[in-house]
Amino acid sequence: MKTTRADPQPADFTDVRATNLAVVLRHLRAHGPSSRAAIAASTGLNKATVSSLTGDLIRQRLLRESGLTSNRIGRPGTTLALDGSAYAAIGLQVSADRLTALAVDFAGDQLLLWHRAFDGEPATTGAGRAVSAIAALAQRAATRVRQQGRQVLGLTVAVPGLVADGGTVRLSPPLGWSDVDLRGLLSGSLRQPGLDVAVANHAGLAAVAELRYGGHQVELDLTYVSGVAGVEAGIVVDGRLLHGSRGFTGQIGRFALGTAGSPTLQDLAGVEPLVRRALPGFDPESLTDLAPAVEQVAVLARSGDPGALAALGDTGRHLGQGLALLANLVNPELIVLGDHYAALAEWLIPAAEAELTRNTLAPDAGGVRLTASSLGLHAAALGGAVSHLDRVDTGSLPAKR
Amino acid sequence: MKTTRADPQPADFTDVRATNLAVVLRHLRAHGPSSRAAIAASTGLNKATVSSLTGDLIRQRLLRESGLTSNRIGRPGTTLALDGSAYAAIGLQVSADRLTALAVDFAGDQLLLWHRAFDGEPATTGAGRAVSAIAALAQRAATRVRQQGRQVLGLTVAVPGLVADGGTVRLSPPLGWSDVDLRGLLSGSLRQPGLDVAVANHAGLAAVAELRYGGHQVELDLTYVSGVAGVEAGIVVDGRLLHGSRGFTGQIGRFALGTAGSPTLQDLAGVEPLVRRALPGFDPESLTDLAPAVEQVAVLARSGDPGALAALGDTGRHLGQGLALLANLVNPELIVLGDHYAALAEWLIPAAEAELTRNTLAPDAGGVRLTASSLGLHAAALGGAVSHLDRVDTGSLPAKR
Repeated sequence: MKTTRADPQPADFTDVRATNLAVVLRHLRAHGPSSRAAIAASTGLNKATVSSLTGDLIRQRLLRESGLTSNRIGRPGTTLALDGSAYAAIGLQVSADRLTALAVDFAGDQLLLWHRAFDGEPATTGAGRAVSAIAALAQRAATRVRQQGRQVLGLTVAVPGLVADGGTVRLSPPLGWSDVDLRGLLSGSLRQPGLDVAVANHAGLAAVAELRYGGHQVELDLTYVSGVAGVEAGIVVDGRLLHGSRGFTGQIGRFALGTAGSPTLQDLAGVEPLVRRALPGFDPESLTDLAPAVEQVAVLARSGDPGALAALGDTGRHLGQGLALLANLVNPELIVLGDHYAALAEWLIPAAEAELTRNTLAPDAGGVRLTASSLGLHAAALGGAVSHLDRVDTGSLPAKR
Repeated sequence: MKTTRADPQPADFTDVRATNLAVVLRHLRAHGPSSRAAIAASTGLNKATVSSLTGDLIRQRLLRESGLTSNRIGRPGTTLALDGSAYAAIGLQVSADRLTALAVDFAGDQLLLWHRAFDGEPATTGAGRAVSAIAALAQRAATRVRQQGRQVLGLTVAVPGLVADGGTVRLSPPLGWSDVDLRGLLSGSLRQPGLDVAVANHAGLAAVAELRYGGHQVELDLTYVSGVAGVEAGIVVDGRLLHGSRGFTGQIGRFALGTAGSPTLQDLAGVEPLVRRALPGFDPESLTDLAPAVEQVAVLARSGDPGALAALGDTGRHLGQGLALLANLVNPELIVLGDHYAALAEWLIPAAEAELTRNTLAPDAGGVRLTASSLGLHAAALGGAVSHLDRVDTGSLPAKR
């Protein structure tokens, strides 16, 4: 997703038009249906330009006229809205025990949300069987969306761990994968020439979803912390996901809180260790799906169970220490506790906040706030889909077919 | 220095022109004197556009015609170069024991480099006396530059520690300052209305200088590690300094390598602890200026002194552990050991590299390389000056006077 170059590129009138198309799309994305006059007033573009830009976008079926505004004096104006009928985007989320597919239309409305049981571990068979299962679900989702008459803008697969720029999973400890060319294998089995297939890190995509759909008043500097497999962070800087030189960012779970050989942040503050501690009678073999266990921890905590509360307090304190390292380095405005952490946030946040403040050099923890995600367990799938809407919203309109 | 907004701003032809002015300036900055034809060929701008843009820049005295190219067939072309005669920028670097002032002209040539003994600690007198000393040196540098007939594009002061967006030093442990409105105080005492005065973090400004003058083949993702006062990092992401939501980034020295209360990275890998250990007979009171002591450590190491080599090895190992945390989070392409570390890099880097690789999740440490800065002890002052050239290079030309 790296698009910035250090050297500016020559600009021409095409770029001005792309920028202004983006301004109109982002305005409607942020503010909902608006009249041409309201778009002009709010963006600073002149009315003739807005008419020309929206004309293009209507012809491209990215906008539609949605009705008349009558709540004003004078001639009623036509209201424009994002058009969900022509395009869709798909996100697919891979974890050790299940696949999630999610599609949204261009207006951002959810078209489908499917879960499938999955065995991510390649064991002796290589990742081939796992990739086939991912491809089959992707194919079904794309087919469903097309049957509804929508063109697929793209498909992005979210994987926990290190994903290199070309879409190769360099290392995914939760899946037991290393050097799996997931993008290449998927592109091959989907046999959909021209379909934009991408693979990216789980927490990074969840952060993209959180920025757009999380309901936060934060535009630029947000970090999403995922506890779904190990502990990973998706770090948004200046409104864009922190990519690094090769795409390997956000590996906060590897912080060793101690000298060499000490336990890491994910040993001390991971969701699985927390569940094992809070539910001592729990059968470790049944832990492939953490969600029911996490729910049980929440029930115990709500009932005042001392063991569960102690485990949550310790987890929160360690999480806060780890997040202080991150806050000292990147100074986010908001840290969002995602997926399983969100369900336990009311007990984790007080302990985490105290440690975060205590261990951050800047007064008041550099202004960072901690909150819980409201996006549930499929934020990364949503982010995968949303990333293709984001690309259109920067003025890069889909090719006509 | 935060300029990006999440929402794109409407563009018009003025923006196209600013972008293309930037393209021409950046081309000449990177490639040296070039003919109009060479600029057009290399940037993709057409020749008429290049002629018009360079005409503007010559009238603004940012470019000059520097001679004829004759090493080609046909009519000799005129060569254009950055013009250093009309503008200059000033950087000022504050440390606990000295002030450094540096000025460059618009062509990037150094005009002056001054050092002054300094007592940064405000003790009982507040920061007032320190600020007066800084203002006096800034005033002298600005006067000197103006006597040479150059307009001052701006002045930036580098301070170790936390600098808030408005130029207030929130916390500088090395200087013993908290909540000193340095920008306001300086602007007041300089009495130069219209002079662009800024205050920013030491390591961040050094990173800006390193990116431009370090001689590295790295455009986008570079981290500069300063050991001049504590341990701080200047993190460049996608070619821009990582700013965070309030400007408090790069505080790598605060990592506690252990449980709560453990020594921090700067306790274990700071330059001052290293010197104290490598030179056991050294008088701590004489440590206000570390440079001679650092040189002595290098001399001992070169002679094979076991104590110095052991201290350097331990420091390098701890530094590598701290840099691994940073590499796991932001995945830089290059980490540059700056200021005092640079003088000791040949002993620090081997130990640091091994730990960095061992503690980074990504194979091969995510591709990051370690190297030593060649910019010496005034990189932050240079970065302060350069930041004003950078602003012009983005197409924001100086106002005519």
